[in-house]
Amino acid sequence: MATPNRQVRLGARPVGLPTAADWQHTTEDVPEPGDGQFVVRAEYVSLDPAMRGWMNDARSYIRPVRIGEVMRAAALGRVTASNHPDFAVGDHVTGTFGVQEYAVSDGRGVIRADPARAPLPTYLGVLGLTGLTAYFGLLDVGKPRAGDTVVVSGAAGAVGSVVGRIAKHLGCRVVGIAGGPDKCRLLTEDLGFDAAIDYRAGDVRAGLKEHAPDGVDVYFDNVGGEILDHVLARLRLGARVVLCGAISQYNATERPAGPANYLSLLVNRASMTGMLVFDYEKRYAEGMSVLADWLAAGVVTASETVVDGTIDDFPEVLLKLFAGENTGKLLLRIAD
Amino acid sequence: MATPNRQVRLGARPVGLPTAADWQHTTEDVPEPGDGQFVVRAEYVSLDPAMRGWMNDARSYIRPVRIGEVMRAAALGRVTASNHPDFAVGDHVTGTFGVQEYAVSDGRGVIRADPARAPLPTYLGVLGLTGLTAYFGLLDVGKPRAGDTVVVSGAAGAVGSVVGRIAKHLGCRVVGIAGGPDKCRLLTEDLGFDAAIDYRAGDVRAGLKEHAPDGVDVYFDNVGGEILDHVLARLRLGARVVLCGAISQYNATERPAGPANYLSLLVNRASMTGMLVFDYEKRYAEGMSVLADWLAAGVVTASETVVDGTIDDFPEVLLKLFAGENTGKLLLRIAD
Repeated sequence: MATPNRQVRLGARPVGLPTAADWQHTTEDVPEPGDGQFVVRAEYVSLDPAMRGWMNDARSYIRPVRIGEVMRAAALGRVTASNHPDFAVGDHVTGTFGVQEYAVSDGRGVIRADPARAPLPTYLGVLGLTGLTAYFGLLDVGKPRAGDTVVVSGAAGAVGSVVGRIAKHLGCRVVGIAGGPDKCRLLTEDLGFDAAIDYRAGDVRAGLKEHAPDGVDVYFDNVGGEILDHVLARLRLGARVVLCGAISQYNATERPAGPANYLSLLVNRASMTGMLVFDYEKRYAEGMSVLADWLAAGVVTASETVVDGTIDDFPEVLLKLFAGENTGKLLLRIAD
Repeated sequence: MATPNRQVRLGARPVGLPTAADWQHTTEDVPEPGDGQFVVRAEYVSLDPAMRGWMNDARSYIRPVRIGEVMRAAALGRVTASNHPDFAVGDHVTGTFGVQEYAVSDGRGVIRADPARAPLPTYLGVLGLTGLTAYFGLLDVGKPRAGDTVVVSGAAGAVGSVVGRIAKHLGCRVVGIAGGPDKCRLLTEDLGFDAAIDYRAGDVRAGLKEHAPDGVDVYFDNVGGEILDHVLARLRLGARVVLCGAISQYNATERPAGPANYLSLLVNRASMTGMLVFDYEKRYAEGMSVLADWLAAGVVTASETVVDGTIDDFPEVLLKLFAGENTGKLLLRIAD
């Protein structure tokens, strides 16, 4: 008798925050793996701000998820059946398996996760695309030097927290921007940031003046919107702005305002550059190796918010991301 | 008997376009040059969009002109008296001599102009900071490759026209954005641009779609505002936006809107980088040498709008710049 496979599919293009009506929940039989294929059962599903963009019908760096298609997602799971020479039953793997309990894969883009080396969730976090985004974005685009002032927004989030730790390791002064006193405490007390600015408490501009008195050399932006604009006004000569995300804009229903202070780039001969981790695929091994060493040495720390549930809880858990309820990587752990 | 020196000074900080009330016209005696100094009589005064920024009391790449101070300006003139070992009476020189008939200089930042090698006005245009801005901005920041689509705004202006010619020389497809049919005709018929978009005629967006169907690899921006936003929406993967100026914004009396499409930088892993020619001072000789060769070979062409008048006409001539009445470099030629 075939095993049922619960799936969450995109039901409609959301306007603003996704609602229950934007999703379809379906059940299919788990297919038998063909030649060169294997089946993986999801244990952790990754929740990422970028998902909101994939739901829009807009030209972007990746094609939109189609209506009726299983929602795209990275996940970590265990191989339950295999006709693939390189993957055996019981192996832990990560890949773009989608929001479903079981996925069939031919191994392309799949990375092995070794639970003996690091806890499984870290393979979706610090040792996964999240950590790699921080690693390549900060080092390759931000180009921080010891003594630089590095500001990161979404600093208590999955990417931001790793960015801050790496920047500290490189001898930078690190200022995090996050929402709420708990997150700000996490930054300064647990993650070793030099200062934290609570954007919900009010004046980001004054906070930047206080905590980055000589200006900002590197800004790693995960949020966009007004905060980006405030930081632009404080750039230092030759500053680098890394555009990694804009979570404040993803659910906007009106055309968001652009960064009015962009001419600070001209005055300060600064640059603002978009980065996507997928462009670094050939260097993933390098990044993962360094991050694994850093994780072992305590340079970076694994930080996750794990929500227990079933695959059907995905739509609700996704909203936690946009409400800023997580610190570190947000994961849905699928009950057995 | 001392010679009178007519001067134009900043009288007040303008709001919006400068008016007559923002200027003071004064007369002083031409001073005797001290030891190591010389006196130069202005023959051409340069008019540049950046001047509007210097009139504001705002932190920028250069200190604002003070109220009551002679307005800052580059000029070309002839040495009329000298106690400087390197400059003799009769020499032609360019420098930041200000909006006045006579200036005293110690030779710092002064560049010799040889009328036997090129017509005098070119030393403020193609062979001056204008040409150097195009040269370093396009090559160093824009990094065009043969086959790239290069879009330049303010394309009929001093910097833009040189940018377009250099890009053509490098084998790029060059699209200019300018105001009015005459300027557009100049671009395609005289300057060899592949296409021109008349922003005054209307739809820049449609024009970009037509003339840069595969998207934009390099955008050299002299104007900012809506045009920048339209081009951002058409960037190609890995595009480079060179922020050289924003003439559409300089006289704004309200806080201008930022480029709402800035997230195109993220989607396309593109960069937007500010450039100022002053950062390339150590390479001026290199740039001038290449530009002189290119001028002789017809790769770049000298294009100037020369207005005859007295130094007191400066305020009025400056307005021509913001009305877009010039093509190429705008110069005020001072009558003897």
